[in-house]
Amino acid sequence: MTRSYRDARAEIASTVRPLPGRELVPLAEAFGRVLAASVLADRDQPPFHRSTRDGFAVRAADVPGTFRVVGEIAAGHALGRSLTAGESAEIMTGAPVPDGADAVAMVEHVQRDGDQVTVTTPLASGENVVAPGTELGAGTQAIAAGARIGTAEIAMLATLGYAQVPVAPRPRVALCATGEELVGLDVVPSPTQIRDSNSHTLAVQVARAGGVPLRLPPALDDIATLTKRLETALAGADLIVFSGGVSMGKYDLVEDVFKKLGGRILFDGAAIRPGKPVVFGEIAGKPFFGLPGNPLSTLVTFELFARTAIDRLAGAEPLLRFQLAQLGGPFQQRALPLTCFVPSRLSGPYAKPLRSQGSGDIAALCRADGFVVVDPGVTDLPEGAIVSYMLR
Amino acid sequence: MTRSYRDARAEIASTVRPLPGRELVPLAEAFGRVLAASVLADRDQPPFHRSTRDGFAVRAADVPGTFRVVGEIAAGHALGRSLTAGESAEIMTGAPVPDGADAVAMVEHVQRDGDQVTVTTPLASGENVVAPGTELGAGTQAIAAGARIGTAEIAMLATLGYAQVPVAPRPRVALCATGEELVGLDVVPSPTQIRDSNSHTLAVQVARAGGVPLRLPPALDDIATLTKRLETALAGADLIVFSGGVSMGKYDLVEDVFKKLGGRILFDGAAIRPGKPVVFGEIAGKPFFGLPGNPLSTLVTFELFARTAIDRLAGAEPLLRFQLAQLGGPFQQRALPLTCFVPSRLSGPYAKPLRSQGSGDIAALCRADGFVVVDPGVTDLPEGAIVSYMLR
Repeated sequence: MTRSYRDARAEIASTVRPLPGRELVPLAEAFGRVLAASVLADRDQPPFHRSTRDGFAVRAADVPGTFRVVGEIAAGHALGRSLTAGESAEIMTGAPVPDGADAVAMVEHVQRDGDQVTVTTPLASGENVVAPGTELGAGTQAIAAGARIGTAEIAMLATLGYAQVPVAPRPRVALCATGEELVGLDVVPSPTQIRDSNSHTLAVQVARAGGVPLRLPPALDDIATLTKRLETALAGADLIVFSGGVSMGKYDLVEDVFKKLGGRILFDGAAIRPGKPVVFGEIAGKPFFGLPGNPLSTLVTFELFARTAIDRLAGAEPLLRFQLAQLGGPFQQRALPLTCFVPSRLSGPYAKPLRSQGSGDIAALCRADGFVVVDPGVTDLPEGAIVSYMLR
Repeated sequence: MTRSYRDARAEIASTVRPLPGRELVPLAEAFGRVLAASVLADRDQPPFHRSTRDGFAVRAADVPGTFRVVGEIAAGHALGRSLTAGESAEIMTGAPVPDGADAVAMVEHVQRDGDQVTVTTPLASGENVVAPGTELGAGTQAIAAGARIGTAEIAMLATLGYAQVPVAPRPRVALCATGEELVGLDVVPSPTQIRDSNSHTLAVQVARAGGVPLRLPPALDDIATLTKRLETALAGADLIVFSGGVSMGKYDLVEDVFKKLGGRILFDGAAIRPGKPVVFGEIAGKPFFGLPGNPLSTLVTFELFARTAIDRLAGAEPLLRFQLAQLGGPFQQRALPLTCFVPSRLSGPYAKPLRSQGSGDIAALCRADGFVVVDPGVTDLPEGAIVSYMLR
């Protein structure tokens, strides 16, 4: 039985090893990269008792009561003294709460009269105050090595003063589309030819996944050209991705050439549609994918499988993010022992499967924004069913 | 009553106008840009009767039957003749089906014996064949102006031979964090100071939204510095985003300076948490946001509001993508007339709200990957409830 896409992903994840080395990049270029070393807090976060509100710092035990306002504390400044019983200080959001106070009464909840302020709304000790180190203690881990640097990690790295960030190298990914019918972008195709789109689509998928795309010209289905392309890829890339040439046609020579150059196939086929003939292997210590050549198959198999290898090469946990969506109408298909990725379009939370002419239909893919994921054997899904959804 | 985030977004969308002009960029740089002109199909897609399978081209009406194999058709090549009754041609996926045949019998479903092939599995006319123009007719619109160029659009543009792509200009977005407590990345903060993280986080949010970030140094809460920053922003940017200085504290001067320079406030406040004090306005014909300064508030209000303005400036339909998720445990909070964005973490389809110390807690934001979106007034959500989720 053909392996499930989950098993295939697990096999890729356990085969591919992180690339050695690391780089230092400026913070502004760190987004989307993988952190190469754990980051520790240089001091407590917050560094002081931080007020979370504009208001008045007081001792909560003295509420309800009237306080004498002895000063004001802007963010970035300290009061310069402690408060004693019956005293208060006006305080801004983000400013340090002075010693002698343990809570902040919100400005909306007090009556002020000259240098007096009256607080009647009950106030608990610690209310509207974050104590030092409660978000993050000095010396503790703020972000673990292997994390993808997203918005929050950028905020944390800036907070900790990381002008330069240690990151894993970006995996270089060679991309080659194969097929007798393919011509380059600059060629006017004859009536039986089409332009290579896969290497362009794969290039943006690689970049989005954090890799560096190395796009090779399309290869004809002959052993000499395919051999040359594979040798070029081996010389310059950490991961090699071919599209086309892996189904049952007699011109599907990619596997033959791959084996001739010493490649070892680790799996051949996954229980998915589109994309069933996907091939994963290893050659000269580098992971290799032979993705099916129909554009929808290529796109889906890249996201499911090749992306896992890129994550692993970069030292990150492979992440396949399906969301949930609600079917906007009923869905039927014949029973298949395959996980099906059905081109669909979201409207708010509702997913509507689209008509398509099969896995070569780029126009249908343009109308879609993703795929409803249908489990093996499922033939009927009612309107309103909660389904998994993969954005394209 | 404070406006809902939906009404606030609608107001932004109806206020902000697309930037004039367009650029031509190479296909490899078009990903994430907004198409500035509609793209038409230069010829039928597919351009010929395309076989979707490896197999044998036959006339479906002659099945079941035995056929003489008169040639083979690789992708990119034509047979060079028509088939007559009783004839078949071996055909590869993606190759043109010859005249005289109207279907392709899959190689897995035939018995071959020398130059004879027997097809017994019933075959409908048109089966495994896509007729010319059924995906996309010559001259019809392939992608509409205003579309964000994603993976499928790259595939389509390559198919149609677009080596250069007409795209809308990237909106330039000035970013300035304000607050007495803020110091730059290169400064060791005093005990009462913290480093500016917002301008760095906003910069990656702008870039992710397709804009060009122009990061200004943090501004102290004084009129002279704020005025200078706003003037710099006005000189170089299409959209101006300040963070901090918009709540009720007496040092919250951003609105004052904005008005002094001729700015007009269009709304002040939205019914959300965090981020309630968000300000939207217009100054010298340019949209302006005063985002609240606590990092979680800044991040959420950028995604909800400033991103809408970037989309509109680029001529794209504003898109706010919430997904669905399933609550991994029960959730309670007190009744609030606000849409709440609760820092949470996904595990598969399950969303788990996290403990946080409020909207200044960057460490909690790092542990989260997004926010459960809780509608106004909702106090209890049971485990397993389907909720909206916004990735961070």
